[in-house]
Amino acid sequence: MDDRDNERVRIGIVGCAEIARKLCRAIALTPNAVLQAVGSRSLDKAKFFAAENGLSSTGVRLYGSYKEIVEDPSVDAVYLPLPTSLHVQWAVAAARHKKHVLLEKPVALDTTQLDQILEACSSNGVQFMDGTMWLHHPRTLSMRKLISNPQLFGYLDYVYSSSTFCAPPEFLESNIRVKPDLDSLGALGDLGWYSIGSILWAVGYELPVSVMALPQITCNSAGVILACSASLFWDRSPGCQEPTEPASATRRTVATFHCSFMAHMSMDLTIIGSNGSIHVKDLAIPFEENSASYEFTPLAKFVDLHIGWSAKPERTGILSEIPQEALMVQEFASLVRDIKRKGLPPESKWPEISRKTQLVLDAVKKSIDLGYSPVYL
Amino acid sequence: MDDRDNERVRIGIVGCAEIARKLCRAIALTPNAVLQAVGSRSLDKAKFFAAENGLSSTGVRLYGSYKEIVEDPSVDAVYLPLPTSLHVQWAVAAARHKKHVLLEKPVALDTTQLDQILEACSSNGVQFMDGTMWLHHPRTLSMRKLISNPQLFGYLDYVYSSSTFCAPPEFLESNIRVKPDLDSLGALGDLGWYSIGSILWAVGYELPVSVMALPQITCNSAGVILACSASLFWDRSPGCQEPTEPASATRRTVATFHCSFMAHMSMDLTIIGSNGSIHVKDLAIPFEENSASYEFTPLAKFVDLHIGWSAKPERTGILSEIPQEALMVQEFASLVRDIKRKGLPPESKWPEISRKTQLVLDAVKKSIDLGYSPVYL
Repeated sequence: MDDRDNERVRIGIVGCAEIARKLCRAIALTPNAVLQAVGSRSLDKAKFFAAENGLSSTGVRLYGSYKEIVEDPSVDAVYLPLPTSLHVQWAVAAARHKKHVLLEKPVALDTTQLDQILEACSSNGVQFMDGTMWLHHPRTLSMRKLISNPQLFGYLDYVYSSSTFCAPPEFLESNIRVKPDLDSLGALGDLGWYSIGSILWAVGYELPVSVMALPQITCNSAGVILACSASLFWDRSPGCQEPTEPASATRRTVATFHCSFMAHMSMDLTIIGSNGSIHVKDLAIPFEENSASYEFTPLAKFVDLHIGWSAKPERTGILSEIPQEALMVQEFASLVRDIKRKGLPPESKWPEISRKTQLVLDAVKKSIDLGYSPVYL
Repeated sequence: MDDRDNERVRIGIVGCAEIARKLCRAIALTPNAVLQAVGSRSLDKAKFFAAENGLSSTGVRLYGSYKEIVEDPSVDAVYLPLPTSLHVQWAVAAARHKKHVLLEKPVALDTTQLDQILEACSSNGVQFMDGTMWLHHPRTLSMRKLISNPQLFGYLDYVYSSSTFCAPPEFLESNIRVKPDLDSLGALGDLGWYSIGSILWAVGYELPVSVMALPQITCNSAGVILACSASLFWDRSPGCQEPTEPASATRRTVATFHCSFMAHMSMDLTIIGSNGSIHVKDLAIPFEENSASYEFTPLAKFVDLHIGWSAKPERTGILSEIPQEALMVQEFASLVRDIKRKGLPPESKWPEISRKTQLVLDAVKKSIDLGYSPVYL
């Protein structure tokens, strides 16, 4: 047994954005990872971050530049919570220095940029994963088992997702996430990433036939999206068709999502199958950190006279021993360790999920640019 | 005081469809209405309906034609649960015989037809109301109070509605509701009526600027819609704008709905405001008849580090002493009595709601016919 079996994966945080605080805490709660270094645009900022997050006496290395941290040979992997426009530069730089890359979402401004990142990761043999934390929550696995069950769930008919929060007026004009030079995808990138990702997750990552943005998006004065909606459409293969269905009833799946910086907080995911339906109201960030739930309504029919339902939603609660971000870091670190120790290739599932999400996001953007026309993938 | 003050409004049921059983029971539970007559295409059918619904010894008049019942001077008002294609003929005939009209939804195949019905009702001074029962549930009033409250709910950002149930294969080809000569609007008429109605209800019956059907609808072999989705869009007047909003952030409302005969039962209504959001999962027909609930999430923010929400959904339960259909009949009968006794004009609110619902339904149909193009109202 390799004496490094119990060694933790050493992670460097590149950039001290607000969201980095959450990952900093998550790394501390992850058994197979350790925070090795923090780099910011200035050493003062890195020091402030360290002080604010209780890192001062932990021996975490502090850097006054991104360059130093991606070049540090003691760093195995980096977490990049930078503005989206900086992702290509620093993710590629990290990969070239053989750092595994945990990249905050939205991962890139478009698929072309993302492909540069993925190519750099692939050719340098490093793991890529984006920061979509809810995918790692045990609730997600529990729901996957349910929707994979043909008896309980059946054929997937419709998915609805919302990702909204009500930002203060000053945010809508000046936050990083609505600055054209930093995060030009605005709400579509920041929140639509969750919605698109959750819809793709629900359909088992089959890309839609077409994507259409819905009239009308809302932009700020710089033209950055503050709110938008879209629909996605699948014409499922005949293999999905139930033998009892008449030939005329082609099996189709439609999904819609809404994302907005100007609406009350919502993180809905509703998945309607032919035999059952799932409702979640706090997908991306559960109401509480240590437990989350979803509702499943199984095989409901009308009772006689149609004055009620034969079945009501049943709530399933799922405990989470460590936060979903820590589970994400744990999965990431586990893959990194397998690559380092066993020489295994990087897990392709994670970059594939990111790329499909980005492809759909690009299609929504294109549909908006074309005046809400359908875009075929 | 008129000695007819305590007299009940005498209702005739024209047509013995399955849904008529529910209204038959509702009339019996309504304090100010009484079932006076039942008419079917044959006397045998009327007799069978009477026997099946315990009417045999009640003195209810039975007719073997629709004509006899709409001509019976002892009938004050009629309830018409006929296939949609027969609505114009019999609603107009009833109105011309001074019968008040409670018309099952969808009220007509298009607005032109509906206008014939409404004109007949108006020129004969009779009340028109469609059979959208959930509008009469006390839960609906409770939710109205909430979304009308600017502090609690704020500006209306998004509405999502679904109306689905999983019909057996034989239904999809041969039920009245999917027959081109009887209910050619299919799922859009039968289920979309609820979704469109609930969205219009949520926006206070302001018509949308535009409506767009979403790719792709599903039809049966006769071309009748089995499943469809659509989006609606409002550009709200500046009067709705909060003074703290930047001018760039125009206030828009988007709604989407999905209706399907091929999906598990769902009756979702989700309304997202700027300050709060409402979730209902059993809008048109509550899970249980004597009580219903909704969830309201007030002013939720992220807690520190974004690891949870500051507020969770709060459930409000509403008791219903009599079924929502009985509340509908009660409201209808009350208006009829006011017209008969006090000579008041018919209440215009109900035909207006029906007409707006039909206008949007027509627009969805037109958008489908135009290949999912936006239709401006």
